[in-house]
Amino acid sequence: MTTEHETVRERDLDRLLTFVDAVVAIAITLLVLPLVELTSDVTEDDSVRELLHTHSDQLWSFVLSFVVIAQLWSSQHHAVRRMLRADPLVSRLLVVWMFTIVFLPFPTALVATAGQQATTKVLYVGTITVSTLCLALVAVVLGRRPDVTDGVADHDPRPATISAALLLLALGLMLAFPAAGYYPMFLLALFP
Amino acid sequence: MTTEHETVRERDLDRLLTFVDAVVAIAITLLVLPLVELTSDVTEDDSVRELLHTHSDQLWSFVLSFVVIAQLWSSQHHAVRRMLRADPLVSRLLVVWMFTIVFLPFPTALVATAGQQATTKVLYVGTITVSTLCLALVAVVLGRRPDVTDGVADHDPRPATISAALLLLALGLMLAFPAAGYYPMFLLALFP
Amino acid sequence: MTTEHETVRERDLDRLLTFVDAVVAIAITLLVLPLVELTSDVTEDDSVRELLHTHSDQLWSFVLSFVVIAQLWSSQHHAVRRMLRADPLVSRLLVVWMFTIVFLPFPTALVATAGQQATTKVLYVGTITVSTLCLALVAVVLGRRPDVTDGVADHDPRPATISAALLLLALGLMLAFPAAGYYPMFLLALFP
Amino acid sequence: MTTEHETVRERDLDRLLTFVDAVVAIAITLLVLPLVELTSDVTEDDSVRELLHTHSDQLWSFVLSFVVIAQLWSSQHHAVRRMLRADPLVSRLLVVWMFTIVFLPFPTALVATAGQQATTKVLYVGTITVSTLCLALVAVVLGRRPDVTDGVADHDPRPATISAALLLLALGLMLAFPAAGYYPMFLLALFP
Repeated sequence: MTTEHETVRERDLDRLLTFVDAVVAIAITLLVLPLVELTSDVTEDDSVRELLHTHSDQLWSFVLSFVVIAQLWSSQHHAVRRMLRADPLVSRLLVVWMFTIVFLPFPTALVATAGQQATTKVLYVGTITVSTLCLALVAVVLGRRPDVTDGVADHDPRPATISAALLLLALGLMLAFPAAGYYPMFLLALFP
Repeated sequence: MTTEHETVRERDLDRLLTFVDAVVAIAITLLVLPLVELTSDVTEDDSVRELLHTHSDQLWSFVLSFVVIAQLWSSQHHAVRRMLRADPLVSRLLVVWMFTIVFLPFPTALVATAGQQATTKVLYVGTITVSTLCLALVAVVLGRRPDVTDGVADHDPRPATISAALLLLALGLMLAFPAAGYYPMFLLALFP
Repeated sequence: MTTEHETVRERDLDRLLTFVDAVVAIAITLLVLPLVELTSDVTEDDSVRELLHTHSDQLWSFVLSFVVIAQLWSSQHHAVRRMLRADPLVSRLLVVWMFTIVFLPFPTALVATAGQQATTKVLYVGTITVSTLCLALVAVVLGRRPDVTDGVADHDPRPATISAALLLLALGLMLAFPAAGYYPMFLLALFP
Repeated sequence: MTTEHETVRERDLDRLLTFVDAVVAIAITLLVLPLVELTSDVTEDDSVRELLHTHSDQLWSFVLSFVVIAQLWSSQHHAVRRMLRADPLVSRLLVVWMFTIVFLPFPTALVATAGQQATTKVLYVGTITVSTLCLALVAVVLGRRPDVTDGVADHDPRPATISAALLLLALGLMLAFPAAGYYPMFLLALFP
């Protein structure tokens, strides 16, 4: 009976993770749509080289956002990799995390068109920070519930917490020194 | 022979559920597209803060619809969690349920642009109600077919039926008191 | 050695089917995008009821195409349900089938905007017919390769072939009697 | 302990491959969106036949890109089919490969609207070449890490390397003889 109950909870976890992964896969692929949109007014007479030059901001925000989402997926993947069974609290945290991923294309599009404004910076970096904090909370919860994991204690919330702190530091620098653009986000690279 | 036949029906169920989940994952991610669209006319000279203010209706309808689809997915997930094998009638009900999810982005978009009209309210709440009723029917059918589940009798159609009734009550209030906007839908929160 | 080789071919089949199913899930969900598009010009002052009336053609083509893709998915699902291992020829047929599904939203959109033209009818019904014929060929191939299935001989190409014939008959009637619109497609319902 | 660790790495690989496959499934399905866009200005009075004729370039670039992505997916599928466990370097290469697939709809859209320009050709064929080279590198890495595969040495980087060389040759011919259009890409067909 217990075993059967556990089997149901294992399937629950599998379906939830597949669902969340599918959402991330779609969000990361939709990033290209604004680039495809750019081409709708192009004709053979317009220089493509010029188009790339004029919209280089949009190309960079595409690359940046691809890296950000891929990185967030990888962190999420790592956070739950030793989970074996569904847990209601972790499920709810993953749904909130999923919300940040589904929402991200909106601030991303703002970065491309109005990236110099403080509101855009707060919205973009804020969304990524909330996303990272969700994963830190997942690690905290899993650390306290050995029954839903394989019992190996590697649920360390510190990496995600440090990432979130670095993101807030980067946001502070971006708001204090607008000329720095989005480069302070490379601070994250300091902490692999 | 029987065992083999059951294996085929287990695979049938797995593929159907993965397919339905993929559709929900896409529908929930597409909700952001109207928000991304908003940014296409924005330039560095327009205030992003003002944009958020002007289109706050659209932002709220995005959040509401994310919560609605996540909730419907969770209910569906719960409805079939003890199913082990495919059943033709349940499959058909799940396809109808899937239809309501695929259709939902259309009334959602109407809520954002013409949300005060009675037709929009009927279309939006009506779609969610039909979706919920499909899940109530799934529970009824599964309760009568112990051979396709693990035999543990927890297929209770009452939660979904009560949700549907609360949705119709909310719709009634929304139509009777237009000033209430979409707030009567929070009635659903009364019943966890 | 043989067993290991078979395990690889089983994984090959699983990945291919998941991939094809994901494509169908996306295609069926994208059907709603033209409806969402309709709402972009709507304001609180426009009647939503009128919008639904003016664009009833588009709403019907949405419903029709949802049913068509759901039906094609179900047929494909049935065609390969007893397959256990990948087969190069079946894989190629499934990729061609997948092409017809990816392409289908284009004729579907034409049905909504220029559905009375003979070219649209040929393109729409023709795509569905090619799709159905692919599945008939899958059944023929699987009937001749018991080594990739579970050996139970239920790969009957006749249902798909009859469906394709009924589709061509429906197309003939639609071209001969334009006033009949797309109703001749209900001929398919004669043959469950 | 070792076994458990290996189980975790097997799940890691499964989730990564499912994620990558989902991204490819979405990218290949999004190819139809520019075609759907074409229909938005069509009315019953416009000839659909003429539309197909005017935009035949776009229809061909749709077919070409479908074949290209299906082929790249098939190569990727083949490259990792004997992998059993996740490997950090291969995971990173697959993420870069995934980037080329997510980006591809942009050069594809340029091929349809400004396909005669050298920049478009370099962007399109260059993206496909980088994609192919990633798969060659995956084969090189897997050839040196028998512990993450089933040990059967069939990780041959030569097919992908030859494909990449043929792509560069095709690009050279396309740039040298603009009148040849994109036909030199059929060189790839020489090498099955």
